[in-house]
Amino acid sequence: MPRNKEEIRKRLQWAALELFRERGYEETTAAEIAANTGVTERTFFRHFPDKREVLFDGEAAFCQALTAAVRDAPEALGPLDTLFVAFNSVKQMFVENRPFTEPRQQVIASNPALQERAAAKTRSLIAAVASALCERGLTPPQASLAAQLGMATLSHGVAAWFNHGSVDLGEHIARAFQEARNLSSSSIPLAKGKPKNPRHPGAGGRAKI
Amino acid sequence: MPRNKEEIRKRLQWAALELFRERGYEETTAAEIAANTGVTERTFFRHFPDKREVLFDGEAAFCQALTAAVRDAPEALGPLDTLFVAFNSVKQMFVENRPFTEPRQQVIASNPALQERAAAKTRSLIAAVASALCERGLTPPQASLAAQLGMATLSHGVAAWFNHGSVDLGEHIARAFQEARNLSSSSIPLAKGKPKNPRHPGAGGRAKI
Repeated sequence: MPRNKEEIRKRLQWAALELFRERGYEETTAAEIAANTGVTERTFFRHFPDKREVLFDGEAAFCQALTAAVRDAPEALGPLDTLFVAFNSVKQMFVENRPFTEPRQQVIASNPALQERAAAKTRSLIAAVASALCERGLTPPQASLAAQLGMATLSHGVAAWFNHGSVDLGEHIARAFQEARNLSSSSIPLAKGKPKNPRHPGAGGRAKI
Repeated sequence: MPRNKEEIRKRLQWAALELFRERGYEETTAAEIAANTGVTERTFFRHFPDKREVLFDGEAAFCQALTAAVRDAPEALGPLDTLFVAFNSVKQMFVENRPFTEPRQQVIASNPALQERAAAKTRSLIAAVASALCERGLTPPQASLAAQLGMATLSHGVAAWFNHGSVDLGEHIARAFQEARNLSSSSIPLAKGKPKNPRHPGAGGRAKI
């Protein structure tokens, strides 16, 4: 039997992830997760309010770290540069959690209820980031827009990192921010070698990152 | 009794909106909406699969018009310029629907289940826009990022238009895209007159748009 609460919590999460992947999310009960961890169902519910939440542990800690990093970023930075610096401050959390979050993504992608929960978590994270940006002097609409753009860009970088893990996450985040800036220009790298804008020499000629 | 189906559908939507605002969304039944429209509950469910959906009619038509506009935008445009042009092509739909969509926003904001549905609709709209962008030669990740950034920017413009309707929607959309670009620079207009970056002469000195 595991001795401390933190260890039980971690073991419940891993047991849940394993069962969800083996049998499917809907087919797995909290009691089974508890049994596979060697604890009672009651213990499961002392750690997590429901079966879904076992996959989203750590979101609160991440939100706290990220909003603190937004507040602590150098004053002179503009909104998206602030987020860029903040994301880099917390990127180690992604690196440490990757063995759990990467297979977790597949479980979430396979279930609409989990997608709903993930989307709600993202919305509340965006709201928290926007609130931290307001403290830096942005209006609420500016802060909300910046938080949405920044978080979408971060997700893009993290997704690329899941696909190409040999490159450092910090590099993927930097590329994602560069890609977001490139979207405003007409000379973005094109798939399929289809030249869209022959008047811009860069069109279609840049390496796909 | 209304004669044609389209008129019944519209009347059901308006009756629903009125009842949701007066009594609350949870407290209103589909049968009451039908009764207030002078039709049977069965007729309600011939038009809408559930009570929530009565608020989201028109999303499919909007999605179709927007994705067609993305496909039809001049080839030379970059991704965000494509979306800017496409949003301007369909803006008249927002203008025509404003008497319904503006009070509808308040009903949605007051109920978590409606917020979930609205968020799911937005996600599927973003996916459709991304798919249309892929047809223009973007990779799926690029297209997804562009669609997310563009739709967040559009929402920002529409929200500003709801608050300041005396200015044309097209102007609000143009300002939103300019604001999104400004977020990448450090000289954004600041709220509260709090100068964040005294070394940049533009900081805090620009008019709030």
